[in-house]
Amino acid sequence: MIPELLPAIESELQRQVARLDQPRTRPFHEMLTYHLGWTGEGAGHETAGKRIRPLLVLLTTAACGANWQFALPAAAAVELVHNFSLVHDDIQDNSPKRRGRPTLWVKWGAPMAINAGDALFVIATQAILELAQSHPAGSVVRAAAILSATCLELTRGQYLDMSYEDRHDLAVEDYWPMIAGKTAALLSAGCHIGALLGGGDESKREAYRAFGHDLGLAFQVQDDILGIWGDEAMTGKSTASDLVEGKNSLPILYGIRQNGKFAARWKRGDIQPAEVNEVAQTLSDEGGYQYAQEQAQQWTERALHNLEAAQPQGQAGRELIGLAHKLLKRDQ
Amino acid sequence: MIPELLPAIESELQRQVARLDQPRTRPFHEMLTYHLGWTGEGAGHETAGKRIRPLLVLLTTAACGANWQFALPAAAAVELVHNFSLVHDDIQDNSPKRRGRPTLWVKWGAPMAINAGDALFVIATQAILELAQSHPAGSVVRAAAILSATCLELTRGQYLDMSYEDRHDLAVEDYWPMIAGKTAALLSAGCHIGALLGGGDESKREAYRAFGHDLGLAFQVQDDILGIWGDEAMTGKSTASDLVEGKNSLPILYGIRQNGKFAARWKRGDIQPAEVNEVAQTLSDEGGYQYAQEQAQQWTERALHNLEAAQPQGQAGRELIGLAHKLLKRDQ
Repeated sequence: MIPELLPAIESELQRQVARLDQPRTRPFHEMLTYHLGWTGEGAGHETAGKRIRPLLVLLTTAACGANWQFALPAAAAVELVHNFSLVHDDIQDNSPKRRGRPTLWVKWGAPMAINAGDALFVIATQAILELAQSHPAGSVVRAAAILSATCLELTRGQYLDMSYEDRHDLAVEDYWPMIAGKTAALLSAGCHIGALLGGGDESKREAYRAFGHDLGLAFQVQDDILGIWGDEAMTGKSTASDLVEGKNSLPILYGIRQNGKFAARWKRGDIQPAEVNEVAQTLSDEGGYQYAQEQAQQWTERALHNLEAAQPQGQAGRELIGLAHKLLKRDQ
Repeated sequence: MIPELLPAIESELQRQVARLDQPRTRPFHEMLTYHLGWTGEGAGHETAGKRIRPLLVLLTTAACGANWQFALPAAAAVELVHNFSLVHDDIQDNSPKRRGRPTLWVKWGAPMAINAGDALFVIATQAILELAQSHPAGSVVRAAAILSATCLELTRGQYLDMSYEDRHDLAVEDYWPMIAGKTAALLSAGCHIGALLGGGDESKREAYRAFGHDLGLAFQVQDDILGIWGDEAMTGKSTASDLVEGKNSLPILYGIRQNGKFAARWKRGDIQPAEVNEVAQTLSDEGGYQYAQEQAQQWTERALHNLEAAQPQGQAGRELIGLAHKLLKRDQ
């Protein structure tokens, strides 16, 4: 790993968020620094998140042959958008914990948390516009337009996710537009903007954009598999299983469509932690595991194919390929 | 009034919001059209709001001698930001009604309403970036930067307002930064962006920016006066009085500082509708009415002085002066 990247991302994020570090709004600033993992109980690397999205921006810029330092405001913007969506998501889902710590709304109440999420979003926009200090205004407008189109996709994905909660007739086809908005859009935007700032031509930008999109879908399907058959989900001791949470994940939607034993159990009501092993086995017997694996495999291949087409260069290029393999669990 | 302005604003807003008018997100689109006063029970002119902010943008552009039509996306952006803040504000304040109709969160629940507010904000950003179709990219970046700096002011004002709820030691000095963020910032940004798009030079842009700011403060102080001594507030039949709502308005903060009969009653707990006349009279006797009137007067004069310095031209210029007088109750 290029050792400067992660520290540079953290300090750029801190610089952007410092816009609120003013006499009357110190406690407001603290809500953001708490959420970003820098302050409060349990602060530190573990709670800060992996910064995958800004890493993708910087590595893409560098893999196009440009200096990643000039893309830092865009990297921060993408990470801030991600965190804005997490803060509002936690309120919407009534989630008490994130990365092992109380969520922002639990600590400061929902009204303050809504406002803190809004501020993260505003600062993301301010960050991307700061690119004007080192890029032509035309590129800045394009980067900002990519980011805001992505934000609209996020709200569409979030709308679909919430609207699905009341529905029992969901099909596998309802899954992809939700995930495209909630997960793939921002990874795709990060790579797209990175390539734009890196000076990539039209076809290179498109290859990186598609790589980010496919990576996001592959990553989410994998996450769905782990949410049912991963170690944590299978212990049955917690609510870590998507079966208990009643999540609209790909294997579950597939299982419902089979209209077999799994679907019958699913429709009977909440699945208890004690049953997760049995229900997971039923879903697996009815093809849910294999179907999801095939989908993850397909999107992974498309992602790696698009990354190859983008011809990533130099050390950053090798690291980008490494990061993709790591996210796609190809390094284990 | 230039008759084309209001219809042009509505159709531009509809065009911008139509980004969500797609098969899977029709009900999501409907949340926005409901809030904007176009659909649902009670839809129509009364519920749509007065569109003061976009009118200020367009009139300023035209009063600088440019074609207001090219500023339409900016006008829509400013109105969308205003409405984003209203939607989130209503959730934060637990307000059941807005312009006589159930608020968005009452109809669709807080999680959906948070997301709908987010979408309004995203679309505002997309709208302002669309200026690139008719303006140089450098101007677009500047306009977008003005708007997003203003949005940060909005979140700061909102933070202050919410943080004041638990405090009993507020001073008049705490009032201005809250109002500057919540009310003046967006009016100021509208005029500033209008002047920028109208091709105004540095001093003209600054005069319009200051005009919008002072207009916002004068307008808010007047609103505070009406919230205690206006007809609706004095009937005592509803919770229309800021005294009953316990709002941190300017006359109230002034009254608390006097530490007299009003302050003693205020500190004793919630004021009941039946007492509003008596308490309003006490506050007036202790100088709260006169103080607020003087402040409104001062900001009004500054606003009109700055507007004069901006030398608004033509019919739009006359209408801008007329709109300012109307907002500042100088036409009655």
